Amino acid sequence: MQQILITGFEPFGGETINPSWEAVRILPDTIGGYALRKLRLPVSFTSAIRELEKSVRENSPASIVCIGQAGGRTAVTPERIGINLMDARIPDNDGFSPVEAPIDPNGPDAYFSTLPVTAIVQAMRKAGVPAQASLSAGTYVCNSLLYGTLHFLAQNGLKIPAGFIHVPFLPQQVLAKPQPSLTLEQLQTALTAALETIAAALS
Amino acid sequence: MQQILITGFEPFGGETINPSWEAVRILPDTIGGYALRKLRLPVSFTSAIRELEKSVRENSPASIVCIGQAGGRTAVTPERIGINLMDARIPDNDGFSPVEAPIDPNGPDAYFSTLPVTAIVQAMRKAGVPAQASLSAGTYVCNSLLYGTLHFLAQNGLKIPAGFIHVPFLPQQVLAKPQPSLTLEQLQTALTAALETIAAALS
Amino acid sequence: MQQILITGFEPFGGETINPSWEAVRILPDTIGGYALRKLRLPVSFTSAIRELEKSVRENSPASIVCIGQAGGRTAVTPERIGINLMDARIPDNDGFSPVEAPIDPNGPDAYFSTLPVTAIVQAMRKAGVPAQASLSAGTYVCNSLLYGTLHFLAQNGLKIPAGFIHVPFLPQQVLAKPQPSLTLEQLQTALTAALETIAAALS
Amino acid sequence: MQQILITGFEPFGGETINPSWEAVRILPDTIGGYALRKLRLPVSFTSAIRELEKSVRENSPASIVCIGQAGGRTAVTPERIGINLMDARIPDNDGFSPVEAPIDPNGPDAYFSTLPVTAIVQAMRKAGVPAQASLSAGTYVCNSLLYGTLHFLAQNGLKIPAGFIHVPFLPQQVLAKPQPSLTLEQLQTALTAALETIAAALS
Repeated sequence: MQQILITGFEPFGGETINPSWEAVRILPDTIGGYALRKLRLPVSFTSAIRELEKSVRENSPASIVCIGQAGGRTAVTPERIGINLMDARIPDNDGFSPVEAPIDPNGPDAYFSTLPVTAIVQAMRKAGVPAQASLSAGTYVCNSLLYGTLHFLAQNGLKIPAGFIHVPFLPQQVLAKPQPSLTLEQLQTALTAALETIAAALS
Repeated sequence: MQQILITGFEPFGGETINPSWEAVRILPDTIGGYALRKLRLPVSFTSAIRELEKSVRENSPASIVCIGQAGGRTAVTPERIGINLMDARIPDNDGFSPVEAPIDPNGPDAYFSTLPVTAIVQAMRKAGVPAQASLSAGTYVCNSLLYGTLHFLAQNGLKIPAGFIHVPFLPQQVLAKPQPSLTLEQLQTALTAALETIAAALS
Repeated sequence: MQQILITGFEPFGGETINPSWEAVRILPDTIGGYALRKLRLPVSFTSAIRELEKSVRENSPASIVCIGQAGGRTAVTPERIGINLMDARIPDNDGFSPVEAPIDPNGPDAYFSTLPVTAIVQAMRKAGVPAQASLSAGTYVCNSLLYGTLHFLAQNGLKIPAGFIHVPFLPQQVLAKPQPSLTLEQLQTALTAALETIAAALS
Repeated sequence: MQQILITGFEPFGGETINPSWEAVRILPDTIGGYALRKLRLPVSFTSAIRELEKSVRENSPASIVCIGQAGGRTAVTPERIGINLMDARIPDNDGFSPVEAPIDPNGPDAYFSTLPVTAIVQAMRKAGVPAQASLSAGTYVCNSLLYGTLHFLAQNGLKIPAGFIHVPFLPQQVLAKPQPSLTLEQLQTALTAALETIAAALS
């Protein structure tokens, strides 16, 4: 059975959980005829992409879907584009804090996600979960992983649909803060709808 | 068995559902040893309070908890105070649109909720649902119902704990809008925690 | 010449300026036939109201207008009501941090501002400055000063129009933060329009 | 004297003014040794870029700075990147409403602004105006103009620094709305600081 690689991140920024990994690890083992290979990545500009590349080389997935936390957003937000820029407000979990630096000085300025973003948004909404396409994955590790993945695939001539989906805070992260959240069940529903859409487009 | 009166509102403002009534109608029949009397109120400055007063006279509830929608909020928000002011941005469902008018020209400026607001907020958070005390119920029908209820009880010398809890949009109301929401299950959990807290304080 | 008492606050919460005092101190000496008595108050639950009462006793002003900072707001916001509640997220400048305590255990729940709030909002907008009536002055020193002032006047049978106006951050407070602000010139224009409206209503 | 081309837009979306053009037209005739050529562009996916290209061909400016309105932002926001995507929530002033379409099917996914974005942000803040670099110019006419300009320059081998700066609403657009704004004087100060920075970098 062919695989879809789906990644989440470890916690960062003082949080004890990361909704991206919480949501990924409870997904079923197969969706739409594809086995899900789940990978928990470090919040590290350098290691996250290296571990993803290793998994892609070893497992030749049919598609790659990276998940990350975007605190403050109200909806699940598939990203449209990754840009060739690192700019960290807080150090990553390795203590690395790049300021306005390119990810690859020789890379193009940006890559569009090669996932069917609009179809994914519509499938999530149809499943009852607020969803919006996003035009910026920021300049932290999430964006670097998105750009890095698409750059790696382009440089190696690999035609694997790949992209990134940001998820909001979980309720337990904002019990006493005026910040929006979605439940773990909502994230699971949304990611399942996304993966079914991706699987259907692969076939 | 003694009753707790809990009210929700019909839809308004172009919405086809009102999360307040959706949440109230799925609550169990009894909580903490009290029967829940559920009442669906019209979004009407004049009729909502009249129907509530009628129910209180007929059923002598041990406590009164009114629920309403506050679109745009991220959490369940028990209100601290109702004020003697009507000011409608949009007409109520009777077409009534008061501008900066007192609810009762002879009433006091405001009444504090007599529910245990802080204990309710803590119980909701303990149950896993984002919650905050709110300092304003606005100047629309929700506030009029809160003020009207407390004013009615004061004028009739009734020592019945009473108050108001605002709930956010449901996900289906904001599927394609950048607005926060909580699920129906979260509202049910939060209101159950609130009612258990109220019941415990009554005993 | 009769006086209007207008107060601003000293800085707090880590800020080095307080836009309320910056705006008050540059107002002219007279507006609409009234001398402005300007008073800079400490951010203290106990001292702010004491200093205001002292000034009222000594100077018998025709009206009282207190100004305070409401960081995060986009407009100048005259407050409609002060409530009998102190609840401090951060200690005041005396280190006092009341939690959910009444200002006066024997006082009424709230007092409406006795300034012409709606006319003030309209005058500010006509002068070109974004303005909105606000339904909550919070539960910090600003609200305590508003409630305390109206309570003091009520208890002493003084028919002096009094109220509170919140102002947003100044630009220099948010140069690198995604927070709204208004310029000092805008605050000056708005407060001048407010004072002219108040003066006209007194005559 | 060499020129800097600076453009603003006509009103759109029901507004009667566009702060971008209001700010551009009051700039002085020269800044930092460069003559400012001011151009008012239509809010049109097809015509805006055509008029800009015509002006560039005729006048060979040393730099190109396009200004547009981003309602809801709190600061002046130089854009980092333009992307090869048109997606209109509302029709442009020609009635054209592209949905998820490339600007140029053969163009790269995106171009970074070639203006000194970070230096511009710092200069604006130093001049006292809130400023932030932005990671998305949206998918409406502003982004199309930014992408189109950089694409035109790249295709023609023109090494002209070019980019886009979004400005918030003016106060008169939000007198009665809870939306942030900056004054025309603040926009003028910010754009002057930007142009001085650009001029200094050119020399």
